[in-house]
Amino acid sequence: MSHLRVALCQLDTVVGEVDGNADRIIDSLTRAEAEGADVAAFPELAITGYPPEDLLLKPAFVGLNLAALEKVAAATSACLALVGFVDVVGHEDLDAAVAHAAGAGAVAREAAIRGAPRRLRNAVAVCGRGGVLGVYHKRRLPNYGVFDEERWFAPGTSELELYLVAGMPLGISICEDLWFPGGPVPELAAGGAGLVVNMNASPYSIGREADRLGVARERVAEAGCALVYVNQVGGQDELVFDGGSFVMDSGGEVVAAAPRFVETILVVDVPIPPAVRSTTLPVLSISSAPRDPAARRPPPIPAPLGEEAEVYEALVLGTRDYLKKNGFTDAVIGLSGGVDSSLVAAVAVDALGARHVHGLSMPSRYSSAGSVTDAAALAEGLGIDLHHVPIEPAHAAFGSVLADTLGDVPSGLTDENLQSRIRGVLLMALSNARGWIVLTTGNKSELATGYSTLYGDSAGGFAVIKDVPKTLVYRLCRYRNAREGKDLIPESVLSKPPSAELRPDQRDDQSLPPYEVLDPLLDALVLNDRSIADVVGDGFAPDLVARVASLVDSAEYKRRQSPPGVRITAKAFGKDRRMPITNRYRDPAPETTPTTGGAPGDPDGVAPGA
Amino acid sequence: MSHLRVALCQLDTVVGEVDGNADRIIDSLTRAEAEGADVAAFPELAITGYPPEDLLLKPAFVGLNLAALEKVAAATSACLALVGFVDVVGHEDLDAAVAHAAGAGAVAREAAIRGAPRRLRNAVAVCGRGGVLGVYHKRRLPNYGVFDEERWFAPGTSELELYLVAGMPLGISICEDLWFPGGPVPELAAGGAGLVVNMNASPYSIGREADRLGVARERVAEAGCALVYVNQVGGQDELVFDGGSFVMDSGGEVVAAAPRFVETILVVDVPIPPAVRSTTLPVLSISSAPRDPAARRPPPIPAPLGEEAEVYEALVLGTRDYLKKNGFTDAVIGLSGGVDSSLVAAVAVDALGARHVHGLSMPSRYSSAGSVTDAAALAEGLGIDLHHVPIEPAHAAFGSVLADTLGDVPSGLTDENLQSRIRGVLLMALSNARGWIVLTTGNKSELATGYSTLYGDSAGGFAVIKDVPKTLVYRLCRYRNAREGKDLIPESVLSKPPSAELRPDQRDDQSLPPYEVLDPLLDALVLNDRSIADVVGDGFAPDLVARVASLVDSAEYKRRQSPPGVRITAKAFGKDRRMPITNRYRDPAPETTPTTGGAPGDPDGVAPGA
Repeated sequence: MSHLRVALCQLDTVVGEVDGNADRIIDSLTRAEAEGADVAAFPELAITGYPPEDLLLKPAFVGLNLAALEKVAAATSACLALVGFVDVVGHEDLDAAVAHAAGAGAVAREAAIRGAPRRLRNAVAVCGRGGVLGVYHKRRLPNYGVFDEERWFAPGTSELELYLVAGMPLGISICEDLWFPGGPVPELAAGGAGLVVNMNASPYSIGREADRLGVARERVAEAGCALVYVNQVGGQDELVFDGGSFVMDSGGEVVAAAPRFVETILVVDVPIPPAVRSTTLPVLSISSAPRDPAARRPPPIPAPLGEEAEVYEALVLGTRDYLKKNGFTDAVIGLSGGVDSSLVAAVAVDALGARHVHGLSMPSRYSSAGSVTDAAALAEGLGIDLHHVPIEPAHAAFGSVLADTLGDVPSGLTDENLQSRIRGVLLMALSNARGWIVLTTGNKSELATGYSTLYGDSAGGFAVIKDVPKTLVYRLCRYRNAREGKDLIPESVLSKPPSAELRPDQRDDQSLPPYEVLDPLLDALVLNDRSIADVVGDGFAPDLVARVASLVDSAEYKRRQSPPGVRITAKAFGKDRRMPITNRYRDPAPETTPTTGGAPGDPDGVAPGA
Repeated sequence: MSHLRVALCQLDTVVGEVDGNADRIIDSLTRAEAEGADVAAFPELAITGYPPEDLLLKPAFVGLNLAALEKVAAATSACLALVGFVDVVGHEDLDAAVAHAAGAGAVAREAAIRGAPRRLRNAVAVCGRGGVLGVYHKRRLPNYGVFDEERWFAPGTSELELYLVAGMPLGISICEDLWFPGGPVPELAAGGAGLVVNMNASPYSIGREADRLGVARERVAEAGCALVYVNQVGGQDELVFDGGSFVMDSGGEVVAAAPRFVETILVVDVPIPPAVRSTTLPVLSISSAPRDPAARRPPPIPAPLGEEAEVYEALVLGTRDYLKKNGFTDAVIGLSGGVDSSLVAAVAVDALGARHVHGLSMPSRYSSAGSVTDAAALAEGLGIDLHHVPIEPAHAAFGSVLADTLGDVPSGLTDENLQSRIRGVLLMALSNARGWIVLTTGNKSELATGYSTLYGDSAGGFAVIKDVPKTLVYRLCRYRNAREGKDLIPESVLSKPPSAELRPDQRDDQSLPPYEVLDPLLDALVLNDRSIADVVGDGFAPDLVARVASLVDSAEYKRRQSPPGVRITAKAFGKDRRMPITNRYRDPAPETTPTTGGAPGDPDGVAPGA
């Protein structure tokens, strides 16, 4: 049987680095050609990186992207390169229109901004023989969840086209095009495509891989042709792209797959159906016979990752890429001897290497002896350095200078937050002096309920586990220990009751329900936007549900000031969930009166801004 | 000449407070009826408040909005109420669909989320005689700038309809419908409308009023009928709605206008053209004669506000509403004796009253005597209390505990940031102890260039002047002094060179160009998204442009963690400008090599996260 040799180029592009991305593409193309590929397929918007966001409103940026595409096209010869880029419909007048508008009033500016998306398309160029042979425009634009594509693009409307390569009639689609019934994939197949290439920038979340395979199978069943799915890999602010590119045959079976969370080129020979059906769409004929008829065996399909493994890899890749792409080599972490900071330290070591990670122990008058020794054991196990700076002198100094104004030394929540903020100041001083980024250690359960101190434990450059619920934090620690075959994270860290240690004998469960109860409740209220009545119907106690819902609502202002961090769920606190801060909606509880206002006993449990 | 009596109800609604908004609407309707009005028109989405954002993804919230509309409709009798609400097309199955999806996988959830906007409409209900008589669905949805309406709504497609009220054939449109040629306004007029009511939630920015009048005149000229423009008033997170509702006759002249920045009901008799043209659209006949034939004289048209006056009022209203709607009565401000904190204190006093504003003076070893006396003079002039907490004891304590790890006491940027962060900790301690919100004092020039300390001077609940360039800060201070007829803000504050006073003899112009040069340059680069080449073409020095552009690009991570504040320009650092943090795009300079990385000499001039 004859075949088409496809190279799935699962690249880690950098947003904004247009020339660099073009170089990455050309380099991969060269490697694909050396493997005898007929087609090299790249991720969605590979030229600009994804998502380029409001860089798209800069005409100079869009122009640079077009120039970079020309450079890539000029580097092609016999092997086709399918390259994601931003196309401009009628681009000869874009610069002039925006330049004119820039000097005009707000209305003209708005008209130009509104006009620009009418001209921009999320596109793929079919490059070969030194030029651009054809262009496809994405037809379905996601404008929900983390996506805002209708802000920048108009949907494609031009006629579909097939490319005959090595005898295979090939169609092209982009990401969202695949996700719902109908659309260009079955249309291309009905028009004669033997294979559709779908080019993606599809971010990771737990369970996402199964979703992707599910919709691919649905679409393939509808279309009746094979599918090549190419995904981007790497971190971009809060998003992590997990790769996992694959080839699915027309029966819905995955016949080849790339590893996830790593850059790779997967070369696969896709059989050409012996009797290709007659084509009814326009066909651009590129070549009719494969350039390298010797069949090539693709690498074995990687074993699926367990949930802990895939989340852990997402955290490592997201952290590594955020630091690398923003020019950091080293990170500093406040090590409290608790489970959150221990997990963050382990992730950081796997992302950066032990000698680039620095621990800071900052004991107070309330720190237990165990916390200090646990932090030391962790640092030793991970092989990172550990600095000690006691907070008592600063704590005492603040207490005495504030006593005049407050009438007494700070107490209660004020004193708890004070300690946390002193630690934030110390970490930032090390950051400024050494150029190390501060990794914060707050988890999603804390972020959801506001159980954290603004400018205290939430202060830093990147919040590694901000989307990881506390119960999953424990599972990830145990996963990492099991992978190591020893307790990298000391067992005593995992077995002691969680505590912020900001007052004598403090424990999290004095302020919050047990995490085994809290986390499923937060999933229901936040991840799934369910109402209090619904959740109570599931069996949660009405008082508890009302109280936790009130905590979630009241903490929006704190979340808005938190640093970015890795998104690992289908709804993180970020672009996924755009709630107003000023918001008097309180979901009515079915039976009891909900508590109102701040949460009793949480370290910073007051209204917005405090 | 016969007339239609219209009450333009310029209300300050609260996002999420659905029942409260319904009560506000019913109360205004009662007042409009007492004035003999035939029609009472309310702002866009008056039931939910605007913008409700992702509250719209909660089926329980949308349901509450429908129930509140029914309550409003039940309260109507002869006077029509035009009420903005969220309509649900096929809403009988929405709850079931989302409830089902909530228990399913991510794909089903996404399908439901995508499905919900297909069912939701940004709508106006025509309420009268105790019920809903008709509904209009907004046809043009803004999805640019600060707007994301395509995330939640589908555009209206149902047939247009007229309402014959007191003999006037009336049409309805919503906000964006008015802003571009064509659309429902001229269609309604062509179909026989003698008056179109346009219901708005149109946020303030400098120059916006002239833009609105300009597009209204264009549309009236196109349509040939009169226009009633009703706008919301009040603050919602970063947006301030300025009201300024008006009535324009078919010749494009404003015949009545409401004051801006205050809640009001403007009652206007709109003449009914003697020979109303024949109607071709469906007409719902409500009444054929005015209920109160005695003509009423509308109040005089308010004099236009100067630029300083309108910006100042926007800051006061935005601050007052953010605090009030979030449950704060009092604010605390760090008073340095500088111009920024002086302006914020003056705004706070106008927003809250002097006894609800508290100053905190936090001198250091580097504070000039003038700063301390200027802060005291300001506090005395404004009539606010002033607390003194020296930072030296905490500064010394941090220095000694950090010396072990750093090898010496902190110096340079580390020491400058340390002082700023100690002040942030002190302000937050007062906030926690007293329940006062911290108002931060950074201006837009600082926010743009990163000339601020994360968790230091940028720490707080609301950033009053974050969108006000430094040169405008000076103009606003002088405006406020002139309005008072004396120097509320001491002349010495306005005449001394700006300084952060974080090292001996520090001055802003050691790190930044003079603000008279910087601010127009920032407007070109940020507000107008112009390229370096363009701006250099305007005559700015290439080295300077490249350096400032690099500062702006490098400070994105700091801006992302800043508190909300009042938007007063057409492009604030907020929802207006969605730039990636991880972003290697650097607009190429035409001749010289741009500087890269952090800015030399600014208090926190390092890469993202430090």
